[in-house]
Amino acid sequence: MQNRFWRIENRPQGTDFASALALVEEALPELAQGEIRIRNAMLSMDAGTRLWLTDREDGYQPPLPTGAPMTGLVVGEVVASRADGFAEGDLVRAFGVWGALSQVDAVMSGAIKLDPTVEDRRAWFGPLGMNGWTALWGIEETGAAKPGERVLVSAAAGATGVLAVQIAKLLGCEAWGIAGGAEKCGFLTGELGIAGAVDYKAGNVGDQLQVAGGIDVYFDNVGGPMLDDIIPCMNHYGRIALCGLLHDYSSGTRTAPREYDQILMRRLRVEGFFSPDFMDQGERLTARLRGWHEEGKLVMPYDVTQGLENTLSAYAKLFTGGNIGKVIVEL
Amino acid sequence: MQNRFWRIENRPQGTDFASALALVEEALPELAQGEIRIRNAMLSMDAGTRLWLTDREDGYQPPLPTGAPMTGLVVGEVVASRADGFAEGDLVRAFGVWGALSQVDAVMSGAIKLDPTVEDRRAWFGPLGMNGWTALWGIEETGAAKPGERVLVSAAAGATGVLAVQIAKLLGCEAWGIAGGAEKCGFLTGELGIAGAVDYKAGNVGDQLQVAGGIDVYFDNVGGPMLDDIIPCMNHYGRIALCGLLHDYSSGTRTAPREYDQILMRRLRVEGFFSPDFMDQGERLTARLRGWHEEGKLVMPYDVTQGLENTLSAYAKLFTGGNIGKVIVEL
Repeated sequence: MQNRFWRIENRPQGTDFASALALVEEALPELAQGEIRIRNAMLSMDAGTRLWLTDREDGYQPPLPTGAPMTGLVVGEVVASRADGFAEGDLVRAFGVWGALSQVDAVMSGAIKLDPTVEDRRAWFGPLGMNGWTALWGIEETGAAKPGERVLVSAAAGATGVLAVQIAKLLGCEAWGIAGGAEKCGFLTGELGIAGAVDYKAGNVGDQLQVAGGIDVYFDNVGGPMLDDIIPCMNHYGRIALCGLLHDYSSGTRTAPREYDQILMRRLRVEGFFSPDFMDQGERLTARLRGWHEEGKLVMPYDVTQGLENTLSAYAKLFTGGNIGKVIVEL
Repeated sequence: MQNRFWRIENRPQGTDFASALALVEEALPELAQGEIRIRNAMLSMDAGTRLWLTDREDGYQPPLPTGAPMTGLVVGEVVASRADGFAEGDLVRAFGVWGALSQVDAVMSGAIKLDPTVEDRRAWFGPLGMNGWTALWGIEETGAAKPGERVLVSAAAGATGVLAVQIAKLLGCEAWGIAGGAEKCGFLTGELGIAGAVDYKAGNVGDQLQVAGGIDVYFDNVGGPMLDDIIPCMNHYGRIALCGLLHDYSSGTRTAPREYDQILMRRLRVEGFFSPDFMDQGERLTARLRGWHEEGKLVMPYDVTQGLENTLSAYAKLFTGGNIGKVIVEL
């Protein structure tokens, strides 16, 4: 059986993914014991995967070698299975391959069966997906946000950010978001109805944040120099839930906060977190998110690209701020 | 009644305290309601007070104005009181004045009565003092050190560090210290019997730490570029208990860790802490420290200078690495 997929040829420079990934066709090996073959219906585009395309050994996961298929979250139907608990026809989500098919070890790929009665299948990449888990965990556990506190989220118009500001609001916090441009900011304060939005393209974030007042929880997806504008806005005993470093992924430089001393002076807590660490809490997290989702309380705009061959331009949006909400490729 | 004390004349440059502080004599005003007058027996030298001598408004406490007496922890006898609960003859510790006398509001100065039966009065600045509270809190609460974990302490031959490594060991951890020079390192592994010591003057700290293995808790008194050697040695889910930034106080520059992204990649937690925040836990903390102290399990070398007029050279030792253990001025 032939598979068409994106193969890593080189390490990409910036967002020039076309020089680094090639769409190739290869025969799949026989299905091994423990493996499933998924016909991918959708690919999830996630900024964190950019690290796997570098040579950096000190990322949260080792890099993918050149010559390997590009990996990412997929949703699709099982078309063949030699793994316990998975049968032909099952709808599943797994860390699969950017391709027509994903042939993966069921356990290693974190494959889980999805409830086929959920009408909005895209939600498995949104409120009911990793982004949902990450948003809920970061606000409630790592950020330890309490009702009445002020929560600020960067990349707030991205998939995780959109959920994080809404979850903060659902938990009784005053939610603020940072995004690039008037359209995104209007979406945050308009459609999502959060307390305020700061357009980082419209001037110094710190100056603009003065109107908000002190920040108790900063859910940071970005890092970079913006962090130096935000740390001085943090209230004493504030928490920075460090979810991502989009600045670093995009620029190839590394965040080095000049305001680090304020962690001491204001007795802040900065903590990194990462969704695979709380996979074992997945069912509980999903149940809560599903409740909110079914009540229509977790809005998610989807930025959908059709066709495997258009994957790279969809992926690039994550790093150029070209999207609102979840970027998905549908096959 | 006349008082002789150190007055802040200018903001000091580096460790040139003689150009910034002057020993002057002035008449004390009448004792106001709520105040006590203490005949200082000992002054505690603490690196954290260096911030109060700057113009920086973003420190953990506002700067002391020029023209004001220099403030610090004192131990002494009450010679006059208009404050409830304090009487002539009481032995007390308070935030007082670098002078012969401290005339302070009992509440504002955090004055507490000390048990006069404790033979070793210097211990009120050591194991039974703020340094003891800070060490215990940082290891156990902020650092959340668990038995069997590896704990690393910077400025380990300083007053807080000496206690932190010993407390880590008492709590069942493997304790390592960083200090400058063979004498200090020999003291740590010899007299204190901790697992290992790293001489930061003898080469790259990170390279030397390779023999230790991964660090679970880093009790950081220093910050600075050394942090970039240590973060890559942290185990996943490690904690950095940020107690002080001696590097910044000494150099006038600000710590800006290049390895910040590893907080995300390794899911580290960095948290600032500061002893006045847990004053309400003081009795409980002191009781535990006193138990260990009475069993002889908390060794503290004292670096004692005699005479108020010699205060500044004692103070400078904190910033030049000139001391082992607690620096005290006795009057």
